[in-house]
Amino acid sequence: MTEPTASPAPPLSATARTSLGRRKDRAGTDRTSLHEVLDAALICHLGLVLDGHPQVLPTGFGRDGDVLYLHGSSGARSMLAAGDEPQVCVTVTLLDAVVYSRTLNDHSMNYRSAVIYGRPRVVTDPAEKDHGLRVLSEHLAPGSWEHARVPNAKELAAVTVLALPLNEASVKARTGPPADDPAEYATGAWAGVLPLHQQWGTPIPAPDLAAGIPAPPHITDRRT
Amino acid sequence: MTEPTASPAPPLSATARTSLGRRKDRAGTDRTSLHEVLDAALICHLGLVLDGHPQVLPTGFGRDGDVLYLHGSSGARSMLAAGDEPQVCVTVTLLDAVVYSRTLNDHSMNYRSAVIYGRPRVVTDPAEKDHGLRVLSEHLAPGSWEHARVPNAKELAAVTVLALPLNEASVKARTGPPADDPAEYATGAWAGVLPLHQQWGTPIPAPDLAAGIPAPPHITDRRT
Repeated sequence: MTEPTASPAPPLSATARTSLGRRKDRAGTDRTSLHEVLDAALICHLGLVLDGHPQVLPTGFGRDGDVLYLHGSSGARSMLAAGDEPQVCVTVTLLDAVVYSRTLNDHSMNYRSAVIYGRPRVVTDPAEKDHGLRVLSEHLAPGSWEHARVPNAKELAAVTVLALPLNEASVKARTGPPADDPAEYATGAWAGVLPLHQQWGTPIPAPDLAAGIPAPPHITDRRT
Repeated sequence: MTEPTASPAPPLSATARTSLGRRKDRAGTDRTSLHEVLDAALICHLGLVLDGHPQVLPTGFGRDGDVLYLHGSSGARSMLAAGDEPQVCVTVTLLDAVVYSRTLNDHSMNYRSAVIYGRPRVVTDPAEKDHGLRVLSEHLAPGSWEHARVPNAKELAAVTVLALPLNEASVKARTGPPADDPAEYATGAWAGVLPLHQQWGTPIPAPDLAAGIPAPPHITDRRT
């Protein structure tokens, strides 16, 4: 993703909700950590308040500098609600391992997560809307913008693009082995980490794909 | 996870928010689909309304029949808030593939997701609290409850267990290849699916693990 070329961005704001109430040792608020977590994830979970109740939906996103782009059908309820610029919470989670401790109580997960709060604006400028969709596309399917047909006017009209500034956010992570009290060694239980990996499989051509069209390198060489 | 042994559960309630506003073809409301999605996922995203604003946090869960168990430190803000029995939204998402279409507009994801709404109750009965923690443990680290030291009284007091009935929920999924309009074949673009796999790696012993304690089969043989 593109980094901002202007002067360095200010630190992320520390508000009550981004100042973690507990496990402060797992907290980070620097932009580099935030960008790394966002760029390593494919989807986010978008939280909204609808009729006073929480709603959480998985959705794609893309990042350009300190702006997060989200998109959806112009008819989707969650996007319409967000279009009124209410508060949203966007959470991204990468699960890296299960941590096996000598005690159940100290079992844990290794993970990286980011929580972003803000009021997204609906992107109305045609050039920025096109740009936002390209940023989303490059995140979810890098290389496709050059390879497939880009959106036409009718398709553009049917999609809503939202821009959420990365101003208020927190990053949390756990890494490394379990940390058992030596008094627990006597349990004799195994302790350690079981890593969880994500990887792309072999591309499966569509049944209606004409013969002689190989999967291009941006798909066959894709790395998680 | 344990299936209920009593008479079959009623169908999931169809409320305004679980009746999808669009893409009804991707919707399911049967309990079998819901259970399959929940059992295949490791973590969920828990949505709450705090001070009128949405908050979405990743957390572990476990399922026993038609009850979802969640847990957290008794001091965690989100759990305290949920302990007042406000509405929550629990969303589980499994990402299976990226769908490459001949057009950017029809690029998509293959996925399975479940969205559950409800008011969780704080589990106060000691036997159910113990049971809920065991259900959580069996989901996140199957086999550990028999292998590691179970929680003692002090540890039990420091954790809050929530029980959320699976009454109001929806399941959504997309599978299969892209569905391009034949008019788009002329683009010559590749079309198909790039599967995304999750798999466990090799267990990494803790640095403080005594020699001669091999990783047990419930860890070495774990399957996603």
